[in-house]
Amino acid sequence: MRPVRYAMVGGGEGAFIGPVHRTAAAIAGNCQLVAGAFSRDPARAARSGEALGLPAERSYPSWSALLDGERDLPADERAEFIAIVTPNHLHAPVAIAALEAGFPVLTDKPLTDTIAAAESFANAADRTGGLVGVTHTYAAYPMVRQARELVAGNRLGAVRRVAVRYTQGWLARAEDAVGKQAEWRLDPARSGLAGAFGDIGTHAFNLVETITGDPITRLSAELRAAVPGRTLDDDGAAMFHLAGGGRGTLIASQVCAGDANGLAISIWCEEAGVHWAQENPNVLRVARRNGPEEIWTPGADRGYLDPPAMRVTRTPSGHPEGYLEAFANIYHDFALAVRGRPPEDRCYASLAEGMRSMRFIAAAHRSSADNARWVELENDA
Amino acid sequence: MRPVRYAMVGGGEGAFIGPVHRTAAAIAGNCQLVAGAFSRDPARAARSGEALGLPAERSYPSWSALLDGERDLPADERAEFIAIVTPNHLHAPVAIAALEAGFPVLTDKPLTDTIAAAESFANAADRTGGLVGVTHTYAAYPMVRQARELVAGNRLGAVRRVAVRYTQGWLARAEDAVGKQAEWRLDPARSGLAGAFGDIGTHAFNLVETITGDPITRLSAELRAAVPGRTLDDDGAAMFHLAGGGRGTLIASQVCAGDANGLAISIWCEEAGVHWAQENPNVLRVARRNGPEEIWTPGADRGYLDPPAMRVTRTPSGHPEGYLEAFANIYHDFALAVRGRPPEDRCYASLAEGMRSMRFIAAAHRSSADNARWVELENDA
Amino acid sequence: MRPVRYAMVGGGEGAFIGPVHRTAAAIAGNCQLVAGAFSRDPARAARSGEALGLPAERSYPSWSALLDGERDLPADERAEFIAIVTPNHLHAPVAIAALEAGFPVLTDKPLTDTIAAAESFANAADRTGGLVGVTHTYAAYPMVRQARELVAGNRLGAVRRVAVRYTQGWLARAEDAVGKQAEWRLDPARSGLAGAFGDIGTHAFNLVETITGDPITRLSAELRAAVPGRTLDDDGAAMFHLAGGGRGTLIASQVCAGDANGLAISIWCEEAGVHWAQENPNVLRVARRNGPEEIWTPGADRGYLDPPAMRVTRTPSGHPEGYLEAFANIYHDFALAVRGRPPEDRCYASLAEGMRSMRFIAAAHRSSADNARWVELENDA
Amino acid sequence: MRPVRYAMVGGGEGAFIGPVHRTAAAIAGNCQLVAGAFSRDPARAARSGEALGLPAERSYPSWSALLDGERDLPADERAEFIAIVTPNHLHAPVAIAALEAGFPVLTDKPLTDTIAAAESFANAADRTGGLVGVTHTYAAYPMVRQARELVAGNRLGAVRRVAVRYTQGWLARAEDAVGKQAEWRLDPARSGLAGAFGDIGTHAFNLVETITGDPITRLSAELRAAVPGRTLDDDGAAMFHLAGGGRGTLIASQVCAGDANGLAISIWCEEAGVHWAQENPNVLRVARRNGPEEIWTPGADRGYLDPPAMRVTRTPSGHPEGYLEAFANIYHDFALAVRGRPPEDRCYASLAEGMRSMRFIAAAHRSSADNARWVELENDA
Repeated sequence: MRPVRYAMVGGGEGAFIGPVHRTAAAIAGNCQLVAGAFSRDPARAARSGEALGLPAERSYPSWSALLDGERDLPADERAEFIAIVTPNHLHAPVAIAALEAGFPVLTDKPLTDTIAAAESFANAADRTGGLVGVTHTYAAYPMVRQARELVAGNRLGAVRRVAVRYTQGWLARAEDAVGKQAEWRLDPARSGLAGAFGDIGTHAFNLVETITGDPITRLSAELRAAVPGRTLDDDGAAMFHLAGGGRGTLIASQVCAGDANGLAISIWCEEAGVHWAQENPNVLRVARRNGPEEIWTPGADRGYLDPPAMRVTRTPSGHPEGYLEAFANIYHDFALAVRGRPPEDRCYASLAEGMRSMRFIAAAHRSSADNARWVELENDA
Repeated sequence: MRPVRYAMVGGGEGAFIGPVHRTAAAIAGNCQLVAGAFSRDPARAARSGEALGLPAERSYPSWSALLDGERDLPADERAEFIAIVTPNHLHAPVAIAALEAGFPVLTDKPLTDTIAAAESFANAADRTGGLVGVTHTYAAYPMVRQARELVAGNRLGAVRRVAVRYTQGWLARAEDAVGKQAEWRLDPARSGLAGAFGDIGTHAFNLVETITGDPITRLSAELRAAVPGRTLDDDGAAMFHLAGGGRGTLIASQVCAGDANGLAISIWCEEAGVHWAQENPNVLRVARRNGPEEIWTPGADRGYLDPPAMRVTRTPSGHPEGYLEAFANIYHDFALAVRGRPPEDRCYASLAEGMRSMRFIAAAHRSSADNARWVELENDA
Repeated sequence: MRPVRYAMVGGGEGAFIGPVHRTAAAIAGNCQLVAGAFSRDPARAARSGEALGLPAERSYPSWSALLDGERDLPADERAEFIAIVTPNHLHAPVAIAALEAGFPVLTDKPLTDTIAAAESFANAADRTGGLVGVTHTYAAYPMVRQARELVAGNRLGAVRRVAVRYTQGWLARAEDAVGKQAEWRLDPARSGLAGAFGDIGTHAFNLVETITGDPITRLSAELRAAVPGRTLDDDGAAMFHLAGGGRGTLIASQVCAGDANGLAISIWCEEAGVHWAQENPNVLRVARRNGPEEIWTPGADRGYLDPPAMRVTRTPSGHPEGYLEAFANIYHDFALAVRGRPPEDRCYASLAEGMRSMRFIAAAHRSSADNARWVELENDA
Repeated sequence: MRPVRYAMVGGGEGAFIGPVHRTAAAIAGNCQLVAGAFSRDPARAARSGEALGLPAERSYPSWSALLDGERDLPADERAEFIAIVTPNHLHAPVAIAALEAGFPVLTDKPLTDTIAAAESFANAADRTGGLVGVTHTYAAYPMVRQARELVAGNRLGAVRRVAVRYTQGWLARAEDAVGKQAEWRLDPARSGLAGAFGDIGTHAFNLVETITGDPITRLSAELRAAVPGRTLDDDGAAMFHLAGGGRGTLIASQVCAGDANGLAISIWCEEAGVHWAQENPNVLRVARRNGPEEIWTPGADRGYLDPPAMRVTRTPSGHPEGYLEAFANIYHDFALAVRGRPPEDRCYASLAEGMRSMRFIAAAHRSSADNARWVELENDA
């Protein structure tokens, strides 16, 4: 298969997630960056394109110019999908325009900044029939794919209890909220209605539903700005119910001093618990009622893994893969889908899954505003 | 110092916690078992006493006979305190009678089965001025003592967030609830108003307050019997507030298949997080905002430990201590207190701390019964 | 069974291993300290006995007085065995006299200071038919017993390779060699012909032979005093052969700064490797050719453990046991043997095993002195 | 900087290390594959080139055709360096021809199959002045770079002892030696004079010298074919001396059942030990004489890391990097060197370092053949 051509919106000089997307696409091996609108600042956009080795004419000064320009190219030259790596509030406008211009869209998470924007996005996808993917990276690790086989595949019995937490410390102090990354994430106009719950809580939420295959139906949440002076939540927790009867707790906080990127999940089923932590991603602990605890690890030579985990493993056992490889799995599968061959166990989140995350943010917000009362997730649209 | 003589109520053949108490007292090195009322079954009581090498006349057929018999002995022969290791519903009657007979009381946790019984117990202690200790074992590990120095000692800044969980799997299935241990724990008449929250949730609660030195003021809890047919909770979770402004979550469950004795706590303060897990008790992780994560471990030669942790370490660094040694710290300190020299940083829980655990159970129960509404802990008496 | 009475030689005030032996005996539950000759300094001996609650007349001023005194007591009062916890050079004289006086002997390791002394010891045991045990503590951990079942029990195929190391840092600097513990261990007159190889290398050696059930036949060793000015080795390594064809490496060093008590062993067999580390003793990793790595842990409720591991487990799974409990297993089994009922899978080392350790020290010494040439272990007597 | 163009020799369909090199180059971000001679089988070579998106004319049928073809291209089109990923016996002929044709060479390890070939290689490099790099991947992990800063940078005192092991299990059984990978590695004609010691022992050797900055001067080694019927060693161990006075042991084995890619090293210095294991590469344990053990982890925001570790970190702390990223560091730095700007702390091994590994293999071989006698490393050329 020849590489799938893509264009990027956002991700210019100094960005965090843009380079991550590009490296992921390079690792995927089936994608090729051919164009970009890397910044609203034309000079910065141009410099970014040049550094990436793009011809000047395909380093566009704006995302609308990019969509126009690419649409006008011959079919075998133009970008085959648009990757969106802007701050949250731009996801929807860019995506809607791209869909209407006929481009599939792969957007960073969360889907958008507001529920209203998300619904416009969804309407555009419905209207155009365009393909949409969302990069909930953590669900794309091999051992998460394996956990999904075990739990959602109902090989360990019904889910009893879930404990998920995503704790970071980078906003632990008021004075930490500096720099490009902190700035837009703490600004409701660009980040949306939720802070930590939007930025990282949605990853935790997505991880629960990915591994269990079971929707969260209701929750009771308490969000807050632990550091005085902030508008958005930087710390919170929730209790939740799964449709299948399981119960869970979720913590999302960016003021947990000392933690880096502490996403960790435990899922206890009737016959076994599975435990995974993102900072040590090549280990899946499976603790059964009887028998020794098991340490599952990736590797193309691991006969005991299921195909969805094997498929996304690049190296022999004992050669650790990491965050960039997980991200690459998303690009790899989205590129296959763009060419009409999505894998059954695709690693990218669907639009519907992106919408679920938005409803999660909204429900948590509503519950928290009303003394942590129980809120139904489905009815929050 | 000559060993402190003690008598035991409960803990006969087939008991779990009785032998643990006796071994703990043996490790403590300053206690001596001199009498017991090990069972309501006289033959069993006698056999138990004989196996423990007690003279027949001090292996009593009932706890009331024990209290009478010991009281009548010369001061330098009689038991100096009474250890209570019965099911929960007997803690209060035995303790009250013992206090009234002039004996200090060291009781297993939780303090009693009901709030009313706990208040009678407390009244008896007030009335008699007798010394009371409760065996919240996990607070007595050296690395928990060290964590308390760091957090309650305010060396890491204010507490931001706490995550504690105590997960076991031994009641994961309906058919698991067999045997002496399961039987009384699942029987409200003997166990009290809460199941998992009483049996192990109280340990988690006590651990939070021990390490933070900060009272939990309110909580929102959801308890349930996950396994059909049970009267008491076997699974539950809560969100809570600390007086100092911190927030937390607590999980207590005995249906988490694959887990053995999974008590684990994370406490994030403004400057660092501390992390401890009971199954690997000789490790205290201290993750600071800056600098490498630190692994604190016990040892008489660890210059960096604080005196309360050093004091309860028996072996040089690298020689692991465990559950029985933690329990021994409680006996050791209670024996000192009986002789009028309680250490400032005593490892046993006080009556007041035992009462707090009872109020925690009651508050969780009340919250859960009312849709997990927020309940104040102080007003639940 | 009534407790087995024992007397201790050595282990007075300020000693390290004496209190460990006494606590171990207390945990064992079937031993009772009835007499002692705790120090060559009579005042110190007396104070030690008093602190241990012994009657003055059974706190003897010398070990010969102890043997005489105890022998003259009625059979149901006198000590039933002698525990020797002196520096190495006294093991043999005390043990020989004790054996000749009719007492079984449980001695700390290594067996003696010199090969000649060890042979006299062995001759005395032969002559008298007396029972002898040696406290190679680390072989008595439950997970080591389990490893022995797997490897020596030939359930994982032939042993291919062994890597064992015992690294400590307490003698890392010249100025560290102070205090009672360092003093005699660094003195050839009291410690014997080898330093680190005798003090801790013998533990590593014993662990290899215990788990594999296969004798080490030859070795090539290089010992040295890494810190200038020392007479005895403080650091060394060896390559060795097992009778069954396996090969191995052994490191013993007391100058490994930062290490506490780092005894760790890996044994790779044809079908699986087993891995154990003393500082985390409740974990036995079993890594099979196929299938996930397994984490075996102790617990009376672990159905997958073999009887020799179950038998020495005191607590339910998830309640960690440690060094003192491992040591207690030795006292427990030796007490059973004294009463004529040694368990088939006894946790104490036999005299023959103690002799093997001595031959190991001697062989290592000889090899090292001759440019690390290969030396046969069997022929070094 | 525009990407550095490279051509690859070897690494066609079914190869293991070729795709690893290409992904590494893609992650590096400053390299671009422009040509290849992927197989001696022309059809296979063509298919491989096509799958990689190369124009047909730059997918050459042989490495000599590649060198000829590229040399004839304009300077701004032709490959700027040659990556060699063939079996060992072809490294030297291809490299020598490439150097003579004016191309810098980046070759997989070990440098060559024989000492004679290595010397020809070195002569060619001398003669031409061409740049040579060797891919000792494991030295390129961020935490290894940091370890080097600490140890070779003499911040922990003199090295006392080293324990390094590289254990794999993929050749544990005779029947495991099937497939392309096993086939050439077990064939002396293609693999060279040493099996496991050449394939993985050289990595262990290189890691020791990289971290300590101190040459291994002499060794005593014992190699063997543990599985009957093999010509080359599949298992072995060595003791060695460092120039600075440190001592060490090295294990290299491919018959350690259950192990995947178990490269692990401990280096004890006078003031601290550093410990690293490849399968958990983002953790560097630093255990000091005093103070808690430290866990160093990578991350662009880790203020405590030294520049050489920071420089090769792509992601924020808590986002794990792995084997492919380590490999990418080598391509990145070699590309810089090709453009005349080698970083001072380059991640690729130099020709001299590659030669050292060859001398290590030869010395181990000679020692083993002569009863593990001590052999000087320097004189083995």
